[in-house]
Amino acid sequence: MPSEPKTLDDLFLDTLKDIYYAENQIYKSLPKMIDQASEPELRQGLEQHRAQTANHIKRLEQVFKQHGAEAKAVDCPTIDGILEEADEVAGEVADKPVMDAAIIAAAQAVEHYEMARYGTLRAWAQQLGLKDAVKLLEQTLGEEEKTDQLLTKLGMTAVNKQAA
Amino acid sequence: MPSEPKTLDDLFLDTLKDIYYAENQIYKSLPKMIDQASEPELRQGLEQHRAQTANHIKRLEQVFKQHGAEAKAVDCPTIDGILEEADEVAGEVADKPVMDAAIIAAAQAVEHYEMARYGTLRAWAQQLGLKDAVKLLEQTLGEEEKTDQLLTKLGMTAVNKQAA
Repeated sequence: MPSEPKTLDDLFLDTLKDIYYAENQIYKSLPKMIDQASEPELRQGLEQHRAQTANHIKRLEQVFKQHGAEAKAVDCPTIDGILEEADEVAGEVADKPVMDAAIIAAAQAVEHYEMARYGTLRAWAQQLGLKDAVKLLEQTLGEEEKTDQLLTKLGMTAVNKQAA
Repeated sequence: MPSEPKTLDDLFLDTLKDIYYAENQIYKSLPKMIDQASEPELRQGLEQHRAQTANHIKRLEQVFKQHGAEAKAVDCPTIDGILEEADEVAGEVADKPVMDAAIIAAAQAVEHYEMARYGTLRAWAQQLGLKDAVKLLEQTLGEEEKTDQLLTKLGMTAVNKQAA
């Protein structure tokens, strides 16, 4: 039997749990990606993103708390899919610049997933009148967008030029 | 035994196959999403996106052809994850505006995945000197971005206001 139909508030909480899982998986995956990267600017960008990710996790815990809910992760097959694909590709590449290009591609898929989810969460928090949550979600969304822009820049210039 | 390590050209072709699979899965999933949506503007946006998706598939086939490769799809666990999550959520929602909010969220996750992949493909096509491919990939990327913006607008206004 299905449980009670869900409200917007339920969806908000479910999506928080989904991105909380995703951020934790990303945090765990980044050291391997950093280790595989060669270009110093890329390594540095990923290092910085790992520090930001730790902060995003803390912000999510604040949002859970504000909402009177326990911080909890639920499996997110999407982020698992992205990280699994990234791992598979990395195993098939030997050339360093090609590896960098593959890492940038994987990191941008991750960033875009996060931007989609934080954009949705921000919109729902606004509709639900959760002003403090809106602020926190917006901060993280802005950082994800900046990371994506940095990756685009790296992808368009040095790294891929060498790879081709 | 692993096969030959991959070149940037190999990654380009692999990613083409990944997004070719994704576009086809999206095309198949849209009728159900349209059927579940209530807000006329949302239904219309999704209908229009389905027509665009058919065109994106044709453009990918052109890129394969330009590249002297056969149009081929390879399983993409990421898009399967996104569509699976969307389907699961839809089954748990009864209220029409909440369903619309869930559909917008799913569609934006799809759009962001596509933007990430087309952005990567465009960068790689540029590095590989595939000028005709760059043009085709850029056209699709622009359309995905516009669809995402429309969904953001819909998500911020009418649909979610009712849902809250």
